[in-house]
Amino acid sequence: MDISQEQLAAVNQNPLYKNVGIELLELGGGQAVSRLTANPQVCWPFPGQPHGGMLFTIMDTTMAWAYLTTLPDGRNCTTIDLSIQYTAPARKGPFTCLAKVAHAGGRTGFIRAEVKDLDGLLVASGQGAFRAIDFDMFAESPAA
Amino acid sequence: MDISQEQLAAVNQNPLYKNVGIELLELGGGQAVSRLTANPQVCWPFPGQPHGGMLFTIMDTTMAWAYLTTLPDGRNCTTIDLSIQYTAPARKGPFTCLAKVAHAGGRTGFIRAEVKDLDGLLVASGQGAFRAIDFDMFAESPAA
Amino acid sequence: MDISQEQLAAVNQNPLYKNVGIELLELGGGQAVSRLTANPQVCWPFPGQPHGGMLFTIMDTTMAWAYLTTLPDGRNCTTIDLSIQYTAPARKGPFTCLAKVAHAGGRTGFIRAEVKDLDGLLVASGQGAFRAIDFDMFAESPAA
Amino acid sequence: MDISQEQLAAVNQNPLYKNVGIELLELGGGQAVSRLTANPQVCWPFPGQPHGGMLFTIMDTTMAWAYLTTLPDGRNCTTIDLSIQYTAPARKGPFTCLAKVAHAGGRTGFIRAEVKDLDGLLVASGQGAFRAIDFDMFAESPAA
Repeated sequence: MDISQEQLAAVNQNPLYKNVGIELLELGGGQAVSRLTANPQVCWPFPGQPHGGMLFTIMDTTMAWAYLTTLPDGRNCTTIDLSIQYTAPARKGPFTCLAKVAHAGGRTGFIRAEVKDLDGLLVASGQGAFRAIDFDMFAESPAA
Repeated sequence: MDISQEQLAAVNQNPLYKNVGIELLELGGGQAVSRLTANPQVCWPFPGQPHGGMLFTIMDTTMAWAYLTTLPDGRNCTTIDLSIQYTAPARKGPFTCLAKVAHAGGRTGFIRAEVKDLDGLLVASGQGAFRAIDFDMFAESPAA
Repeated sequence: MDISQEQLAAVNQNPLYKNVGIELLELGGGQAVSRLTANPQVCWPFPGQPHGGMLFTIMDTTMAWAYLTTLPDGRNCTTIDLSIQYTAPARKGPFTCLAKVAHAGGRTGFIRAEVKDLDGLLVASGQGAFRAIDFDMFAESPAA
Repeated sequence: MDISQEQLAAVNQNPLYKNVGIELLELGGGQAVSRLTANPQVCWPFPGQPHGGMLFTIMDTTMAWAYLTTLPDGRNCTTIDLSIQYTAPARKGPFTCLAKVAHAGGRTGFIRAEVKDLDGLLVASGQGAFRAIDFDMFAESPAA
């Protein structure tokens, strides 16, 4: 499906993204890019460093968007599972997440993603499996 | 290490837990139990349902606490990696997370965890590898 | 589905199991138990110790059998993905693998498994996601 | 460490590789490439298709070699954990495995790998965490 700039802007206003500090930057062709400017309330136990769960969160949601770009309209997806590796401390934000569809077939998509810090250091690497479901998020879920 | 009730209470005041809605309930003997009463700002795209990243977050932090109970004083730990499965929609909170050390040796700990909803339905299952590091969080990090 | 003792015995004659040293011992009710008596040709680089890939192999196949016991006749399953942790060196065989269905719904099954050595030491722990497919292995594949 | 052509040739004679049908082709600079020409005894339940455990096995061992190229002499490594995704049926061999070090620091290495079929179709994708240990395999283990 194609996601318009208006839809992208609306997605970026959702409460989770605002709370954590996630912004979806661009998506298309089986890829998505996002940025994490972590809010203080999600930086713990080390001030200024997002909790590992927030790196996971941006990875998961960016993977989903990457996969969605390969699906027909009227679909959404859910995460079957996701494995994340923490390769280095996440000290120097904002962080950039790049997700790419490795393979999509039937209703299962396999997505890879990495999160890098401001200097380009890899701080997290992951792979997830997603399942396409029938759900038109833009029609049915105003907050999506 | 032993974590006192005062330390546990202090941990529960950290900004991340307050923001997400995480409360550490009890820990000891290689286990930890926590509860997620998800705040509205982390429930998206489905109102009332915590984002998968929040189920991951409580799993990761609860695993860490389970592992810490097996370590000597003056240690902390970092997540090497974590794999999470989403077994069912997380619709009916609060959610309970139970983490158990499967094996700990040297400075590597392998921890399993599951998150269940109010009815006891398994909504997430995970396993993580953690690394013990020299860091006295109670001495050096007041917010920890 | 129910797997008879005759079918179980036939499964245990398949070339992969014979080659590696895998024997399926019992299965039913969402569980399966198997044993690895590793053949010398799969013990490398340490003589007498099965390669990690063989611990994975018995885990994967035992998970599949555990899942199959929960499926109706005429189904088979494929592995979507599997995460394995090596918790301790696999020195003292034979090894026992126990797999349990954590959750099964729709056509996706989430299975956990562990492999223990002769003394009951955990040497590998894993979780996998499987997909049920329409395929009658007992009708179509004599060696299955 | 540098692995000579003689050492590479010796590695390829080990019983596991010969049994499964694995051949290490080249390695250096944090990468390794190998080929799986699966022997009939590891192709089950589908004749001509290697069992998923064999795709895992070549992935695991190729990752280890990729990591070893970044370590000083006198080191070996063990797999902490590995997550594998099966993206498509492995029907058309021989299969090629490419492993790359994503990040290595301290004694932990994070490696990614993929296995492709003869047509370049991705059949398996994985990521693993490895631990460097003090062990001179070329000195102590003639078969390694």
